[in-house]
Amino acid sequence: MSVLTIALDSMGGDHGPPIIISGAVKALHQHPHLFLILCGDSQRINQELKEVQISICKRIKVVHCQDVVTMEDKPSVALRRKKDSSMRRAIELVASGEAHACVSAGNTGALFALAAVLLKTLPGINRPALVSHLPCQSEKSAWLLDLGANISNSDTTLVQNAVMGSVLAQTVGHFGVDHNQFAPKVALLNVGEEHNKGHEIIHQAADKLKKLNKINFIGYIEANEILSGKADVIVTDGFTGNVALKASEGIYTFLREEITRIRSSNLWMKILVMLCIPILKKLYKKIKPDQYNGASLIGLAGIVVKSHGNANANAVAFAITQAIHEVEQDIPHKIKTTIANILLE
Amino acid sequence: MSVLTIALDSMGGDHGPPIIISGAVKALHQHPHLFLILCGDSQRINQELKEVQISICKRIKVVHCQDVVTMEDKPSVALRRKKDSSMRRAIELVASGEAHACVSAGNTGALFALAAVLLKTLPGINRPALVSHLPCQSEKSAWLLDLGANISNSDTTLVQNAVMGSVLAQTVGHFGVDHNQFAPKVALLNVGEEHNKGHEIIHQAADKLKKLNKINFIGYIEANEILSGKADVIVTDGFTGNVALKASEGIYTFLREEITRIRSSNLWMKILVMLCIPILKKLYKKIKPDQYNGASLIGLAGIVVKSHGNANANAVAFAITQAIHEVEQDIPHKIKTTIANILLE
Repeated sequence: MSVLTIALDSMGGDHGPPIIISGAVKALHQHPHLFLILCGDSQRINQELKEVQISICKRIKVVHCQDVVTMEDKPSVALRRKKDSSMRRAIELVASGEAHACVSAGNTGALFALAAVLLKTLPGINRPALVSHLPCQSEKSAWLLDLGANISNSDTTLVQNAVMGSVLAQTVGHFGVDHNQFAPKVALLNVGEEHNKGHEIIHQAADKLKKLNKINFIGYIEANEILSGKADVIVTDGFTGNVALKASEGIYTFLREEITRIRSSNLWMKILVMLCIPILKKLYKKIKPDQYNGASLIGLAGIVVKSHGNANANAVAFAITQAIHEVEQDIPHKIKTTIANILLE
Repeated sequence: MSVLTIALDSMGGDHGPPIIISGAVKALHQHPHLFLILCGDSQRINQELKEVQISICKRIKVVHCQDVVTMEDKPSVALRRKKDSSMRRAIELVASGEAHACVSAGNTGALFALAAVLLKTLPGINRPALVSHLPCQSEKSAWLLDLGANISNSDTTLVQNAVMGSVLAQTVGHFGVDHNQFAPKVALLNVGEEHNKGHEIIHQAADKLKKLNKINFIGYIEANEILSGKADVIVTDGFTGNVALKASEGIYTFLREEITRIRSSNLWMKILVMLCIPILKKLYKKIKPDQYNGASLIGLAGIVVKSHGNANANAVAFAITQAIHEVEQDIPHKIKTTIANILLE
């Protein structure tokens, strides 16, 4: 297999270089054909690489960058004032063809703005979308988009997102099925299943999707069905998608805290919680595993994967793996072709 | 204590009269000063009352209604074509003063439209809002609104909802604190905590709330913090609130299904899950208890409580109890006074 190069924003995320570089090294161990370009403060990066074995370091190139986009920076600051940021450089390496994809755990708004400006959207796509792959009931999974790239969407953007989600579900998700035979079920997120529920924009998007024979549009689903496996692709605006995903995350935190509280209530509960650990581990593996880290910014002429800001090293490695899958499946090309076939014909 | 009369839409909900009447009887046992007016098909209601002891039946009056608002009916159908529906009659009894409050487990959109037309909104309130009381971490709780009464909100509506939520948190929620000393923390739901995040409408609402000295506005919170206890009142538009609440419900269903799957995987897991039952029961009691059934439609010159459509008898009884609390606290009057003090001064 030929070398696959990924540019990594080594300064992003809540924990900075120590976690990002540790994840990078894990990914290099997992993927022998991977080469990484680490963008950021070379002194801090080299510090983290000190203990790394030489054979791994041979597959790393460090590109020094003076600036760092912080979590508080407005997109405009990242775009205009931080011309030598690690985030910008990682995206530029994709734009110039030196890297096949880039990964960042940094400021989502800045990443979105920089990627849109430097990589440009694909023909037929107005705005890129942030999409994530979620584990569902009965061993199923679903792609949810947009998760916050666009705060408000038009019906046109919702339709474009539906088509892009369908391409992802058909090519990246659902391994083991015959992709040519698999028509992902696409749904719009709404506050009810009846046709008169929700915003006018959703109704207009539904009318357009019904007319697209190549999209298996199944109508509206409600937020309590996101993880039911009823739909393979769930489309909504960036504000709502962000809230739906974070509300779900909040439940996990809440349950974890409650279990901690129950455990410390008395010795009997402490023993019971300890006995439950194998079940909790199984649940954890399914519901909030590191392997679901990595939201993709799609609709661009290049691959950009956004890692969770507070990702651990395993999760960073998985975000890199997600980028590798997208390179191997040539997702931007497939989206471009499908959009041309469906929306521009 | 004087008699407190509540009108009950006995035909609403997924299960109809059997569950609603069973919940009504439970509530009558719990509250000796309660009198219920059961609106609906008298033949079906009387069928359910056959086995009920005479002392309880003495505190029930049945009002026969010919029509039923179905879950599929548009609000316009409920308003114009079903003039003798059980839902409409229950609200009319509040409007005429024959009942202190009404409870329905029926079609939310229809309930909202009928209540707005028959009861009218309070001075200074443009539109009523649907609000629910949620259990939070560390024994705290929060009021979340709007949950779907208004699909889209203006900044003015968000501000009015913030004030109404603050009144509820101060008077109904947080028992055991000195209400006069308690200034509920009010937050707007957003996709980030920074001031430039989210829609323009949210920024405008935030600017207005900052200027209201009598409201303890703490800024934005994200959806993963809804149950954190950080805010006592969380304000959002009806579409987003509905999605946030239902996404949370979806996680519980997902976890229940996963635990069932783990249990049936092998005998050892079956034993472990059985051992965990006391913990699961404790969690269930906290997270999705019947006692959190009952969303209130506030901002009206009357009390309307919406029970979950698939509520069981205990949950219906709790929705009735919620209505009793609101009557005893005279919530519409308190909202009216506070709105006059804060927004109309």
